[in-house]
Amino acid sequence: MNIRHWVRPEVLDMAGYQPGEQPDAARPFIKLNTNENPFNPPPAVLQAWADALDFGRLRLYPEPSARPVREAAAAAYGIDAAQILVGNGSDDLLTILLRTFVAPGECVAVPEPTYSLYHSLAQLQGGRFVGVPWDQAWQLPVAGLLASAPKLLIIARPNAPTGHAVPLPLVAELCQRTTGVVVLDEAYVDFADDNGLALLRDHANLILIRTFSKSMAMAGLRIGLAFGPVALLEQMHKVRDSYNVNRLSQVAAVAALEHLADYQPFLQTIRHERQALTVALRQRGFEVLDSQANFVLARVPPGHGGGRWWLETLRAAGILVRYFGNDPSLVDHLRITIGRPEEMVRLLEEVDRVLHG
Amino acid sequence: MNIRHWVRPEVLDMAGYQPGEQPDAARPFIKLNTNENPFNPPPAVLQAWADALDFGRLRLYPEPSARPVREAAAAAYGIDAAQILVGNGSDDLLTILLRTFVAPGECVAVPEPTYSLYHSLAQLQGGRFVGVPWDQAWQLPVAGLLASAPKLLIIARPNAPTGHAVPLPLVAELCQRTTGVVVLDEAYVDFADDNGLALLRDHANLILIRTFSKSMAMAGLRIGLAFGPVALLEQMHKVRDSYNVNRLSQVAAVAALEHLADYQPFLQTIRHERQALTVALRQRGFEVLDSQANFVLARVPPGHGGGRWWLETLRAAGILVRYFGNDPSLVDHLRITIGRPEEMVRLLEEVDRVLHG
Repeated sequence: MNIRHWVRPEVLDMAGYQPGEQPDAARPFIKLNTNENPFNPPPAVLQAWADALDFGRLRLYPEPSARPVREAAAAAYGIDAAQILVGNGSDDLLTILLRTFVAPGECVAVPEPTYSLYHSLAQLQGGRFVGVPWDQAWQLPVAGLLASAPKLLIIARPNAPTGHAVPLPLVAELCQRTTGVVVLDEAYVDFADDNGLALLRDHANLILIRTFSKSMAMAGLRIGLAFGPVALLEQMHKVRDSYNVNRLSQVAAVAALEHLADYQPFLQTIRHERQALTVALRQRGFEVLDSQANFVLARVPPGHGGGRWWLETLRAAGILVRYFGNDPSLVDHLRITIGRPEEMVRLLEEVDRVLHG
Repeated sequence: MNIRHWVRPEVLDMAGYQPGEQPDAARPFIKLNTNENPFNPPPAVLQAWADALDFGRLRLYPEPSARPVREAAAAAYGIDAAQILVGNGSDDLLTILLRTFVAPGECVAVPEPTYSLYHSLAQLQGGRFVGVPWDQAWQLPVAGLLASAPKLLIIARPNAPTGHAVPLPLVAELCQRTTGVVVLDEAYVDFADDNGLALLRDHANLILIRTFSKSMAMAGLRIGLAFGPVALLEQMHKVRDSYNVNRLSQVAAVAALEHLADYQPFLQTIRHERQALTVALRQRGFEVLDSQANFVLARVPPGHGGGRWWLETLRAAGILVRYFGNDPSLVDHLRITIGRPEEMVRLLEEVDRVLHG
């Protein structure tokens, strides 16, 4: 017997999703590579966490469906708790979506480039993955997405790694025209000008997902939310692990949801820094897409190294950014997370040092 | 379009695994229904948690492979960190195992009755589930398990809900004779007389799984460990979510692993109470299997109600136990978690009240 006999061929043949580098705490990198929030949660939230931590109950299983989180989210977002499913991060929700709706051989369609985990999860499920290039000016390729009669369509809005957000009416059109289920991945939506929550009322085949890893500064705690029709969520509940969200993260998520307004100042700061960085990089010869997220995608200027060279040059200077060299359309691009103002100053100093010696 | 078009038939047609009742904190039940530890972790562990909680880093993603946990577990159990994979509870590990090794239509074989989640996960994966009755005197039905040429075999040892532990040489024989992968689910092994760790040296197709939800009193934190050959674990890493174990649970697990000896006193107490409860229930007319776990399976005495009646009678008295009425072989049985000594006294008082009015 050997491993080829034991392991599913889809798993054997895939490389596996590669997350961005998570350096040791001991190494003082400026970390602009995985779109974390550079600020801690607001003091009121941290205090609520400290107050709510009850070590005396951690021996007990958590509430299986994370009901306290669903109820707090229902109050915060004005929908019903039954329309919410909580995941161990939004990656868990994406896994659940693939396993609920996609049988082996069925099609998953996404506009590309986008979050590459969608491709990995489709492979894992034995689905047929169809990546459709964005239309001109990064528009949603509605016809192209529909052409393969997909069972599941996933639109990241704002998209990663481009940062752009397709118009909501095109998402609505996609929901109406497809026979499949549409997932609107709103991981970065708290940094954007609008969101798709209102679309839920009109579409029985639309599921939104959110994460607390970006705007809510809780990447370490693994909380994601899915919003969608009760009939679909009931099926997804069968697929998720019974106790997928631990007690401490449930406590932390409730406290965060009860203090949403306190997050606004640093969300504003990040939007402001995003605009400032976009301008500053363009002045230095980078091509930068307008972004609605907490990162920008920047094409490096000609005349120096390519994307990988910039990645390594910045890393040597203690600055981590993200590079997607496996995608031929992105070989000259860097994705740079918006950090604290002083981190943006350091980044630009380093860019100037590279450009002007 | 309707839901039958969107949802995979395997998912639509299944009921979904039903975990035991998790009552509100406000309701003062004696909770003997989901095999949690009745004691809190040792003070040294709670202190280590408090010391290690670093709210200032929760905005960052956790170490993707939970390396600190793997290293602490490697030191604690005398194996290599590369032979360990950490799950969001052992349920997560079981999901990963099914998705790594079982293609649709392939066979999953288990002796029954056992942990019913195995069946649910096999259904979810589109696998063919074969439940083989335990041999006489609860022996491992080796020939029966091999008969279906399974891709994956799962043996819970100690088994739930019976509490018995099959001899390790039979597990070794199964590993040698099967062409599939054998999973030894050791969720309850810290309450047993021996464990299967030494078998790993001799079998390239054996994976052990452990959980911190029972002996380590951390059900609320969701930590499971898989021990196995590096070649198999490498494939499982591709299947797990990139950041499946949150930061706080990683911190808590490391602290627990560094204080394993401190858990011994309450593990001893639980073993002692298990023996005392077994004797006390037998004296009262229950048939009780010898258990190696932190629960006992008891057949209720004739002349009163059946299993469901006892479940409801005890519940009305504020005592939760587990009942598996869906399994015809268990309709007259209760699974009772070993609680604190005073909880066992209350249970027996209530049993006496039922029996003698």
